[in-house]
Amino acid sequence: MPAPVRPARDVPADGRAFVAAVDAALDAFLRAEGENLAGIVADGRHLTDAIASLSSGGKRMRASLCYWGYSAVAEAAPVDVVQAGLALELFQTAALIHDDVIDRSDTRRSVPSVHRRFEAMHAERGWALDGGHFGVSAAVLAGDLCLSFSEQVFGSLGPAAASGTRARLVFDRMRMEVLTGQYLDVLEEVAGPDRDPAEAVARARTVSSYKSARYSVERPLVLGAALAGADTDLVHALSAAGLPLGEAFQLRDDVLGVFGDPALTGKPAGDDLREGKRTVLIGLARQHAPADDVAHLEDRLGRPDLDAADVARLRAILTESGALRRTEELITQLHGQALAAIEHLPVPERVRTALTDLADRAVSRQA
Amino acid sequence: MPAPVRPARDVPADGRAFVAAVDAALDAFLRAEGENLAGIVADGRHLTDAIASLSSGGKRMRASLCYWGYSAVAEAAPVDVVQAGLALELFQTAALIHDDVIDRSDTRRSVPSVHRRFEAMHAERGWALDGGHFGVSAAVLAGDLCLSFSEQVFGSLGPAAASGTRARLVFDRMRMEVLTGQYLDVLEEVAGPDRDPAEAVARARTVSSYKSARYSVERPLVLGAALAGADTDLVHALSAAGLPLGEAFQLRDDVLGVFGDPALTGKPAGDDLREGKRTVLIGLARQHAPADDVAHLEDRLGRPDLDAADVARLRAILTESGALRRTEELITQLHGQALAAIEHLPVPERVRTALTDLADRAVSRQA
Repeated sequence: MPAPVRPARDVPADGRAFVAAVDAALDAFLRAEGENLAGIVADGRHLTDAIASLSSGGKRMRASLCYWGYSAVAEAAPVDVVQAGLALELFQTAALIHDDVIDRSDTRRSVPSVHRRFEAMHAERGWALDGGHFGVSAAVLAGDLCLSFSEQVFGSLGPAAASGTRARLVFDRMRMEVLTGQYLDVLEEVAGPDRDPAEAVARARTVSSYKSARYSVERPLVLGAALAGADTDLVHALSAAGLPLGEAFQLRDDVLGVFGDPALTGKPAGDDLREGKRTVLIGLARQHAPADDVAHLEDRLGRPDLDAADVARLRAILTESGALRRTEELITQLHGQALAAIEHLPVPERVRTALTDLADRAVSRQA
Repeated sequence: MPAPVRPARDVPADGRAFVAAVDAALDAFLRAEGENLAGIVADGRHLTDAIASLSSGGKRMRASLCYWGYSAVAEAAPVDVVQAGLALELFQTAALIHDDVIDRSDTRRSVPSVHRRFEAMHAERGWALDGGHFGVSAAVLAGDLCLSFSEQVFGSLGPAAASGTRARLVFDRMRMEVLTGQYLDVLEEVAGPDRDPAEAVARARTVSSYKSARYSVERPLVLGAALAGADTDLVHALSAAGLPLGEAFQLRDDVLGVFGDPALTGKPAGDDLREGKRTVLIGLARQHAPADDVAHLEDRLGRPDLDAADVARLRAILTESGALRRTEELITQLHGQALAAIEHLPVPERVRTALTDLADRAVSRQA
């Protein structure tokens, strides 16, 4: 049976201790749930094993933001912030499992994506029928289970996260926003080619705002603060810092999705081009590249069979059109906005330092 | 923003009034959330429209069982049982959206399944890239959103459904069980052919117990009782009635999946055969049919391209081997067990009558 409300434990003293505590909680949670599933039938453990294989490699950025939002208010309050971080990381794992199905990604965090893991199990054991479809089916179910786990853990936070509280509203809205943002993302892949190119950058920024800037940065930060009982002014101030930081984070992701080093990102080179992601980077190229290059880009974007030469040619279009340079300028500008907002936050100095450090890493990262 | 805890409204006076109230609540909820999504961006409403298209045709069996479990204890208690029914129906809709992706079903409740709906939208509007993949992607996200909605509504029930309560434990366990049962179901499709045929019926009954008997009948009934504050004895007595009824319900579903009339079921004839579902019906045929027929069955089961003649031949094997007759006998036996348990329940007469009626309909239904 799932765990009831847990008593608050000591709040970890720093970000590193917090991440270690979240990692340990994740490991313990998935092991306990694996026992529960195996109690139904031994094969049930395939699902928790698959979830664990993907979740173990995370950077815990969302959990960490929740910790720093929490630490902006209280050093110790009757909410287990490690459990809150665990709920966010379980949600993120669920989202990644389904995202990899949607993006047809073979690898994630340098290990096989969950649908590929199940497909490989099918092949190794010589099972019947269509292994690819079995992989997708199992991944859909593993993601659903992980979503339920996330909710189960979030609910165990008790009154501070109960219905009607600010924390619950933030959590519910976060889920709704990221799922809507992801839908807009796949919609833009198919509908974008026929929509007004002059508006492509604006549309890409809307998608990015919902699927990532809010979800990956602003909401976790505000969630932590809300759990610790922040007032409305602090919540707004944290939002004002989180949104530009989140957008800069996503723009860096977009650049890495095309120009990233596979050895560092854990994903194949040019993956976003094969998937046909219509990012700000692509939108800028559609606006500024010569007509021939735009036509070539439109012709190749979203083809699953792009080879290394195709990727190199598309990268050249993005570079020569100035789309890459403009994206980098936008990242620098948003990073600056975030830093200015962080500087004026009414928070303890150690929180300001940590958020500044997070902002620097979000934009300078190579993975 | 999602709704906070709602005040309890009057408990509907009978099952029909309850179903009408759940239908109205579902409609109002999806309309309000559609406005929220459209507030992000107009296209966001595609997701709630798709959810509404599927959810509007349901029989509300799970919600009704929750109502009768609740009514077994209290005529009025400080929990909004209509909201509890709404949470169950939203969960069921989410499960069906993903289930249709997994089973590659084209229709559900006589309307296109959600992935086919999005695929059709793609075709109508002449969008780019792969429409089938767009449909699956959008359906995965719509199902995830609907799962989140279910949780949001369940959480709004307040203290009676808070972490650590019996109702919350039942709800969490129900989700875990049905997802595990569905995984075992798809696993059996691919791994079953090589597993011991003598154990096929036992494995099919395990799958059926988790993916359906508990999820569709026993857990909703117990959930309602738990929300109304039932004691442990009553919970056990309701479980003892719900489990055989749930299994009988699923066995009828298995029979309809092969022998059902498409005009009544809203699904193509023999759909379960194309999907390769290894039900109790199939397990019995593997045990009792002549070797030639078993070989033919194994060869054809799970082929997406089975035609009408194939389906007729497989039906004949299931009939001539006595598998159909044995399944019907099992349904009759489980129905009898359920009726006996219902007869001895310490509940108001109107609840006993309603449960008896539900049991009769669960086994005699044609859709």
